[in-house]
Amino acid sequence: MAPEFAPPPASAPAAPDLKMTLESPLVLQSGVTLSRVTLAYQTYGTLNAARTNCVLVCHALTGNQYLAGVHPATGKRGWWDDLVGPGKVIDTDRFFVVCANVLGGCMGSTGPKEIDPGAGKPWGLRFPVITIRDMVQAQAKLLDYLGVEKLFCVTGGSMGAMQVLEWASRYPTRVFAAVPIAGSYRHSAQNIAFHEVGRQAIMADPDWSHGNYLEVDKIPKRGLAVARMAAHITYLSEAALHRKFGRRLQDRETLTYGFDADFQVESYLRHQGYTFVDRFDANSYLYITRAMDYFDLAQENGGVLANAFKGTPVRYCLISFSSDWLFPTEESRAIVRALNAVAANVSFVEVESDKGHDAFLLDEPEFHQTLQGFIDGSAEICGLPPRLAKGPRA
Amino acid sequence: MAPEFAPPPASAPAAPDLKMTLESPLVLQSGVTLSRVTLAYQTYGTLNAARTNCVLVCHALTGNQYLAGVHPATGKRGWWDDLVGPGKVIDTDRFFVVCANVLGGCMGSTGPKEIDPGAGKPWGLRFPVITIRDMVQAQAKLLDYLGVEKLFCVTGGSMGAMQVLEWASRYPTRVFAAVPIAGSYRHSAQNIAFHEVGRQAIMADPDWSHGNYLEVDKIPKRGLAVARMAAHITYLSEAALHRKFGRRLQDRETLTYGFDADFQVESYLRHQGYTFVDRFDANSYLYITRAMDYFDLAQENGGVLANAFKGTPVRYCLISFSSDWLFPTEESRAIVRALNAVAANVSFVEVESDKGHDAFLLDEPEFHQTLQGFIDGSAEICGLPPRLAKGPRA
Repeated sequence: MAPEFAPPPASAPAAPDLKMTLESPLVLQSGVTLSRVTLAYQTYGTLNAARTNCVLVCHALTGNQYLAGVHPATGKRGWWDDLVGPGKVIDTDRFFVVCANVLGGCMGSTGPKEIDPGAGKPWGLRFPVITIRDMVQAQAKLLDYLGVEKLFCVTGGSMGAMQVLEWASRYPTRVFAAVPIAGSYRHSAQNIAFHEVGRQAIMADPDWSHGNYLEVDKIPKRGLAVARMAAHITYLSEAALHRKFGRRLQDRETLTYGFDADFQVESYLRHQGYTFVDRFDANSYLYITRAMDYFDLAQENGGVLANAFKGTPVRYCLISFSSDWLFPTEESRAIVRALNAVAANVSFVEVESDKGHDAFLLDEPEFHQTLQGFIDGSAEICGLPPRLAKGPRA
Repeated sequence: MAPEFAPPPASAPAAPDLKMTLESPLVLQSGVTLSRVTLAYQTYGTLNAARTNCVLVCHALTGNQYLAGVHPATGKRGWWDDLVGPGKVIDTDRFFVVCANVLGGCMGSTGPKEIDPGAGKPWGLRFPVITIRDMVQAQAKLLDYLGVEKLFCVTGGSMGAMQVLEWASRYPTRVFAAVPIAGSYRHSAQNIAFHEVGRQAIMADPDWSHGNYLEVDKIPKRGLAVARMAAHITYLSEAALHRKFGRRLQDRETLTYGFDADFQVESYLRHQGYTFVDRFDANSYLYITRAMDYFDLAQENGGVLANAFKGTPVRYCLISFSSDWLFPTEESRAIVRALNAVAANVSFVEVESDKGHDAFLLDEPEFHQTLQGFIDGSAEICGLPPRLAKGPRA
């Protein structure tokens, strides 16, 4: 495959706001052609001389490219800092880790918030609807640009898992190992319904201004906050909510008989909603939820999921969480059955956890051990040097 | 107990808009005194001479007093018409069935939509926060008015079950049998969270006008619709949504790559939201969800649920549904355990159903048979005449 660009130096330093702009237009799944697509991305670790140690991490709905370490501007830890770093499960002393903000996102990649070069103003709703396949196609171009022809591993949770499945099924020769975590091969009716509530909440906010809020200098904060609150409940298990909050009151001894946040869980939820609007774009939320809703790897393969994996050389490891009701274990099992049907190399672990869907973002030892074991085993088979047996992790 | 009113004729005919207004003020759980409380109610069947055949049905969050038959104005079937009527499970040939719109409701009972007599304008947010106990206290006054000192049975689903539990624990000598269906003794953190999302959606709508929308001739339709959509998902099981809609498209062959309702489930949800605003008051939604959130029968009894039932003479039958994730079976089991701890007369059935929480409103044969068996058995013990063994039901 001929890269469209001269590759950058093999050792790309971690820095804010790395960007890559495609010279050729991207033909989207909808048929629309999108020109001058930019992906904002981060890299961690060093690409080896053979260019065989790249791990691509795909982020979730509201995730971003800042995986590890501390973001220089926000001061926040990366969303997978527990897992990615020197000596960690995804060991940046061994692997060259890449994570890009998805197409349609709002952290520097081309999306509805960015300026439409043709119109000289933000895309807003004129931005074309994108799909998981489009996101993955753009990532493949980024890897061309980075000089990575084949990934050692592609992984991610939730919407990240959808991208992993799309990657491994569409580019089987470019992936050695694939780890879809807490994901599904198609978005369920219940999940589409929750997304639709979020979109309706955003669109119900008059400040959304039919999608043109950036042009009229408004932000649909209330609608986006409500969308986030509804979604946030689905990320946790009932047990986790009960353990964290129960019916405990917030900074008061007794009920106030009013509509303030009497309960801690209300206060927490409001906080989740109203801090989200400072870091996320409402139109991006519409586009990315739509991409997830549209994802159906079976339907794309003649209605038979196994067709997506026929003859695949990819080594798969699927991970689900027992209390995840947004992407329940059964959804991962369906993928495992399809992979078994084509005699693929697949392992599967349901991690016992009461933390719900969010467990893939949390310090969950059995999950980390599972990923560690699979990565180390795959690295050995792939001919990569073993993990250094050294003292305490950095 | 001296009724505050002269009782009406024992046989009260079914008619729209029966109303009872309390002469004495109601002292609410908050300590606030509410004057001239009106309850709008319906009755079905005839009170027997001994006044021993009354069944009180308590409605759910968005329910109303129109249980059975066809509403003369709306033309809609009553929400429990499958269960209540001549020859049906709650047989109006045998029982005198009463259902009142709850205090705080919007179907004729005193609530935030009604005129505050002191101010000459709608209550809005000046209406005091009410509780399940307040609702039940008002119902007890209604029964005084109707000349019913002791209920043969009190039953209801969801918030109705909360009222049933409050009734049986607070007025144990006024209840012979109690059937809380798909309920809980306290609202869980997850359920408070979902309610809070609904309230935030309503309050985020500028047309809500800080609760004064009726005064400025507006309706917070968009906010209320979003609240309803989010809540509606919780009433169904994932299996039911999958069975009813799956990923089927709405009136189209292919995805449109846009934000229209491509999927049937989206279309259904939008319909649920936007028809709801025509029949429900946004402020009532705030007040009634708050009443549910505040309900905690254990906390009201020194933190020990069993204390709520000590020495109870009431015969209990608890019913839950296997796919109900809003009020899961475990919540009913906790009540059964508390009743067992005080050696109460209790039976419990978890009905196998994939219909989710809404199953209590649907034609679910095992549920109907359970209720039928318990009612017939209790009627026999209570000395009421047996069900007529006749041909097909009316």
